[in-house]
Amino acid sequence: MYKINENYQKLPGSYLFSNIAKKVNAFSTANPDKKIIRLGIGDVTQPLAPAIIEAMHGAVDEMAHAESFRGYAPDLGYDFLRSAIAQNDYRARGCDIGEDEIFVSDGAKSDSGNIQEIFAQDNRIAVCDPVYPVYVDSNVMAGRTGTYDAAAGMWSDVIYMPCTMANHFVPEFPEETPDLIYLCLPNNPTGTTITRAQLQEWVDYANRVGAVIIYDAAYEAYISEEDVAHSVYECEGAKTCAIELRSFSKNAGFTGVRLGFTVVPKELKCGDVSLNAMWARRHGTKFNGAPYIVQRAGEAVYSEAGRAQLKEQVAYYMENARLIKEGLSGAGYTVFGGVNAPYIWLKTPEGMTSWDFFDYLLENANVVGTPGSGFGPSGEGYFRLTAFGSLENTKAAIERIKNL
Amino acid sequence: MYKINENYQKLPGSYLFSNIAKKVNAFSTANPDKKIIRLGIGDVTQPLAPAIIEAMHGAVDEMAHAESFRGYAPDLGYDFLRSAIAQNDYRARGCDIGEDEIFVSDGAKSDSGNIQEIFAQDNRIAVCDPVYPVYVDSNVMAGRTGTYDAAAGMWSDVIYMPCTMANHFVPEFPEETPDLIYLCLPNNPTGTTITRAQLQEWVDYANRVGAVIIYDAAYEAYISEEDVAHSVYECEGAKTCAIELRSFSKNAGFTGVRLGFTVVPKELKCGDVSLNAMWARRHGTKFNGAPYIVQRAGEAVYSEAGRAQLKEQVAYYMENARLIKEGLSGAGYTVFGGVNAPYIWLKTPEGMTSWDFFDYLLENANVVGTPGSGFGPSGEGYFRLTAFGSLENTKAAIERIKNL
Repeated sequence: MYKINENYQKLPGSYLFSNIAKKVNAFSTANPDKKIIRLGIGDVTQPLAPAIIEAMHGAVDEMAHAESFRGYAPDLGYDFLRSAIAQNDYRARGCDIGEDEIFVSDGAKSDSGNIQEIFAQDNRIAVCDPVYPVYVDSNVMAGRTGTYDAAAGMWSDVIYMPCTMANHFVPEFPEETPDLIYLCLPNNPTGTTITRAQLQEWVDYANRVGAVIIYDAAYEAYISEEDVAHSVYECEGAKTCAIELRSFSKNAGFTGVRLGFTVVPKELKCGDVSLNAMWARRHGTKFNGAPYIVQRAGEAVYSEAGRAQLKEQVAYYMENARLIKEGLSGAGYTVFGGVNAPYIWLKTPEGMTSWDFFDYLLENANVVGTPGSGFGPSGEGYFRLTAFGSLENTKAAIERIKNL
Repeated sequence: MYKINENYQKLPGSYLFSNIAKKVNAFSTANPDKKIIRLGIGDVTQPLAPAIIEAMHGAVDEMAHAESFRGYAPDLGYDFLRSAIAQNDYRARGCDIGEDEIFVSDGAKSDSGNIQEIFAQDNRIAVCDPVYPVYVDSNVMAGRTGTYDAAAGMWSDVIYMPCTMANHFVPEFPEETPDLIYLCLPNNPTGTTITRAQLQEWVDYANRVGAVIIYDAAYEAYISEEDVAHSVYECEGAKTCAIELRSFSKNAGFTGVRLGFTVVPKELKCGDVSLNAMWARRHGTKFNGAPYIVQRAGEAVYSEAGRAQLKEQVAYYMENARLIKEGLSGAGYTVFGGVNAPYIWLKTPEGMTSWDFFDYLLENANVVGTPGSGFGPSGEGYFRLTAFGSLENTKAAIERIKNL
């Protein structure tokens, strides 16, 4: 008789955003006249840039003729895209990353979930708390996290690195030594980040203790401060201890287009085993390449027109971030983030849990945000709003919150 | 100090098609004047059907405007596509499969590789031999296959079900009882299949012994015989023992477009645990939906125009299959497949291994095929040719082989 992977049964409840969707649907059904504004899930709202649309139409046309039709893509990505990435995201920033260290995928969520597969079962993971839930959940499924303490919302074998007002949202080296360190910087959900110098300390730490940093740079396009690194490879020594995950979802609005990539440097080795070769094998065995049309769209992100258009798109969202941040501050809230990331992280009013504030905001302002506790135990008492709405909706939401 | 997943180190050499590519590149470099015809990797060559191109352009245009822009897709697939699949692939064939039993993905290779994750580590797998290598390789990575005997090309903990001339390529119930049974029917690489009545025996067997059948129906569009099932759910009792993998790669030419789906019936339960819920959780945690544009392309596959155009496309490839089959038979080869699948499986001439014949064909006819031994030990002494070339190339290849 077959048996299931029992680790799945350990996962508490369902995924954060499913719960939010259920609550919003219930409210919406009960109050059909209320216009709900969604600043919850980190999904973009602005259309794809014209340069990207043009590239996609061109690629679709190529697929219509035998001479230009493309079948299976190279598992690791088309050279035209890997070259554009290596040049623009790395070499232009002084990071010596080669095309063959870049693995194109269908998005950073897949890579975030899958990357743990190339590591041993008994590796110990460390995560910032709060953080994007996929890191922990994918390790739960793999049986790496021990038992769950429902009251504390914590796993026995996960090393949590609290990031709260108390430490200015800067993770500290944990007491126990981790094997894998997930760092999402700028952070989702707090919208905060650390300086290049602070990141260098993490790289040095990882090299010293023999840990791998899994560096999620999904929000790097939103960095506005000079002393913040866009890539972990801006730090010396990162190529021997860090894997970087990148997304096109937020810098180019690809949440529904699906494209990302992972950098695994050739210098990253466990003994004489190359992690670059392991990830190539994983990709080659369980993945068949991102769609040709989507990879051409990705290439257009790096074109001159694409870059100019996307700079405007990022500025549009960051103007929303500024409005939310200033609006909420003016209304007396304590707020963080919004400077190097499209997320605003606010302290809930005294005595309210994250979910209490979710209900309060939904019912009284008809605004949907995300309860901080959904991102980890140290997120309790905080709340996330995203800057990815339209300018009009963002302004309206802030007005409603101010008038509460 | 972190450790790697040691199971990766057990994988012998690199992936079959990489080896072929290396040999072909070496030959091509040494013989730049020779025109090589590739009937090796199962990749399509005909352009996307006009109805699909039209749907993709339409979807790209939608992404260009805020009113019609689509961000994150539902993890499990858009309703418009899941409905079209449930109606056309299942209910129209008398199979009672609901929309919520269908999980849209970026292709059957991903699903083939990932599906093992929801099962326990110590489950025993059974595979047809020869077969698509991903089933075994993904289980190797998960640590389910024991040790590798390089001389025999076999894993100690995998149950091999030989499919050769001796048993007319019909897998027999194994002596040891498996937990997971991978069946790819029509089979890749042999191009052979079994009747609906024979499949019913497998379903009955799985229900009897408590095994799950992972049924890969990637080639169902090529079935021409009435007594062959297009879906495992045509068999009574399949909903309590079978998961079905489907691909758009071969029926609609989507190898470079990337779309597939997996059916996990709600009745499939291990005790009181629903495998449908487990797969939904896996999808929700490690996958972010197939691209909107690609899902609209998938929907067009089921439109009236799409169906008519794709019927012609399948007929085009099956005419190639007929030409290869008859041409090789006429040249004295013993050939199989090509009736319900776009693959021709030939017995290599006496005394030649599969790789000997690969080299012989490459050097003398400049035709690339796939060595049968690459698909499992019982593939030794066989060779695969695909019908996915152009008619012109297929004809030329057969002429060259005839003239050897």
